[in-house]
Order: sequence, then structure tokens, then C-alpha cells
Amino acid sequence: MTSGLWITFEGGDGSGKTTQSELLSTWLGSGGRSVRHTREPGGSEVGRLIRDIVLHHRGDIAPRAEALLYAADRAHHVATVVRPALARGEVVIQDRYLDSSVAYQGAGRVLDGAEVRDLSLWATEGALPDLTVLLDLDPAAARLRLDADDKPFDRLETEKEEFHTRVREAYLALADAEPERFLVVDAALPAHEIAAQIRDRVEPLL
Amino acid sequence: MTSGLWITFEGGDGSGKTTQSELLSTWLGSGGRSVRHTREPGGSEVGRLIRDIVLHHRGDIAPRAEALLYAADRAHHVATVVRPALARGEVVIQDRYLDSSVAYQGAGRVLDGAEVRDLSLWATEGALPDLTVLLDLDPAAARLRLDADDKPFDRLETEKEEFHTRVREAYLALADAEPERFLVVDAALPAHEIAAQIRDRVEPLL
Repeated sequence: MTSGLWITFEGGDGSGKTTQSELLSTWLGSGGRSVRHTREPGGSEVGRLIRDIVLHHRGDIAPRAEALLYAADRAHHVATVVRPALARGEVVIQDRYLDSSVAYQGAGRVLDGAEVRDLSLWATEGALPDLTVLLDLDPAAARLRLDADDKPFDRLETEKEEFHTRVREAYLALADAEPERFLVVDAALPAHEIAAQIRDRVEPLL
Repeated sequence: MTSGLWITFEGGDGSGKTTQSELLSTWLGSGGRSVRHTREPGGSEVGRLIRDIVLHHRGDIAPRAEALLYAADRAHHVATVVRPALARGEVVIQDRYLDSSVAYQGAGRVLDGAEVRDLSLWATEGALPDLTVLLDLDPAAARLRLDADDKPFDRLETEKEEFHTRVREAYLALADAEPERFLVVDAALPAHEIAAQIRDRVEPLL
């Protein structure tokens, strides 16, 4: 669709998405590439308003309403941030994309994963990244990392362990279904080893 | 789907939806029915947060993002307000529902009307009202009424006249396609005559 390169990072909370996407952005930038580091939800001004509703609303949000809010954030973000950056030839590095919705909403909750995926694809007119890095981590290990951070958990983080196990399984199933798009990395490895594996996969795409 | 009765009001801004839905609510209430008067967007707490984004955000919202925000409001509203009220046997009187989205988003803007309708039906698991009252009015007449109100226009109200003409045509096409669900009333008539026409259609449904 473009002359740029679009890489998304996926994985549970505490799997190291922020660390690794920043390391990759820095490496690409030092190599002279123009990099746009962004995220979902909340990668645009409208998206930040939506993110506030989804993550911080007190009281339940109906499951389909939650899925539609994420899709709205995604539609606006892809149309106003991702596509313009790719059209300028930039590398877009993004924390979370539609695989998050499928894994969290579909497998983790009550909605059908295929329907949630179709909703995201309608929202974005079918936009899919060139590469998706899945940082795979046992939920118990992820919990230890988050506890160490000593900061309050948001709504999703307080969901129970069983939920995170279903999310992990859903992520791995998505990676199995699209091996050409996904790079699955063992997120229990030291950060510099993970970063090296990601660079090895990205380099031929540049 | 329920033991209650669900009536929605549709029409352009200035067509008298608020006046007529209040008259009908009062009449039903005085007849001893339990009435829940509500609206979209913004008929729930989550919905009011969404409505704020859609109506008052400074700057463009991508068309698909806007459609998804309305659908999210709708999903939450139907799940948490409309269905529970109908299950209790109440009469739900609602200003605007999915026909608004099809007429405004689909016919009025750049999206396909059938896709917008499918989105709403996914959001609400196929919920359709027992009766939809369309208050049909020439856009020029509606504009005169709004000007008389002497209050600032919101984002949708400031869209140009041509847009409102396309919305009106879209509404009339929807009514033609589902004559059993729609009652089309000439909104240029005196309010008490409109109210009488609506009561005549509602009475046998009670």
C-alpha cells in the first residue's frame, strides 16, 4: 500500500513491548530512517479521548461497545497517522494493533474473534502491517514484572490470570495462522537478545 | 424480543423530534404506561462521553471512526438501557436510532449505507424498534426553525443545506423500504395534528 514500512508490537502487559519498540526505533533512527513511533489505543488526539473512556470509565462497558470503541480509535489512527507516515516513506513502529483486539476481545471475552477482526479490517479499509513482533511470555512471569513496577494497575491489568492465559493462546494461534507476517520472540530472554532477533528480521525489509 | 414497546423518532434537526417524543411520552404516561424517554447519541453515561467526542471535537474525525463511535454508543445504550427497560415491560421512546446513522453517515457522507446499517445491527445484535416515526420536513423549513431558536449550532447543524437534502432523501428511502416499521408524518403540520397522527398509530400497539 505504501513506500514505508509498518511494524507492530504485540504481547501481554509486561512482555516488554515498550522497551523493544523503543530499541528498534532508536536503531532505525541511528541508521538514518525517519521513524514514527505510535500506539493503539490512543495514538491520536481523538484516540486519547477514546482510550480514556475504555481504560478509565468506572463501571462496565458493554462488550460490543468496547470493541467498537477500539475499532473507532483504530480507524482514526490509521487514517490520520499511519497511512500519511507510510506515504511519506517513514517507518511506523506501533505498540498494539488489531491482533490485540482479536486476542483480548475475541479470545479473552465473549465476542467472536473473526467478527472482531472483520470489524478492525472494516475500520482500516483492510490495512495490515508488514511485520508483527509477538513478544511471547508466560502470564505468571509478566505479572512478576508488572508487580515490580509498583504502579497502579488499570482496568485490563486487574483482570485475572486465567484471562491472560487465554490471551496468550489466542496470540500464538494468530501467529501460527500468519507466519509470514509474525515474528514470535521468547520475551523471557534478555532484552538485548530479543532486540537482536528483531533487528535480524527487520533488516531485509528495509 | 420483549414484552415492552420500542418507538424511535427520526428526522433532521428542527423537525420536531423532541417536541413530539415528549408529547407521546406524556400521553402514554397519563394512560398509566411506564415510559423510558431516551436518545442516541448520549443515552447512557458512556454514551455521553462518546457524544462529546463526536459532536464537539475540534478537528476532523475520520468517517469510519465517526460511524464506529456512533455504533459504540448504540451498542452500550441498547444493552444497558433499552433492552432492560423493554424486559420490564416499559415503553421506550427514543430520539434517533440506527436510521439516523444510515441517513447521516451513509447517504450524507462517504460511507456505504448498507455497511453502516450492518455495523449498527452487529452493535445491537439485530435490535430493531416496533415503530419508527419519521418527521419529514423540507430542509429550508427546518433551517428557519433552528435559526429562530437563537442558540449556537453544533458540528452537524452547521453542515450545509445540500447535505440535509440528501439526508431527507435517505430517510424517505428507508421508510419506503420498511413501510410496516415506519410512520412518515408531514412535520410542517401543527404540532397537535402530528401528535394525533402518532397516537393513532401507537394505540393499537399498546
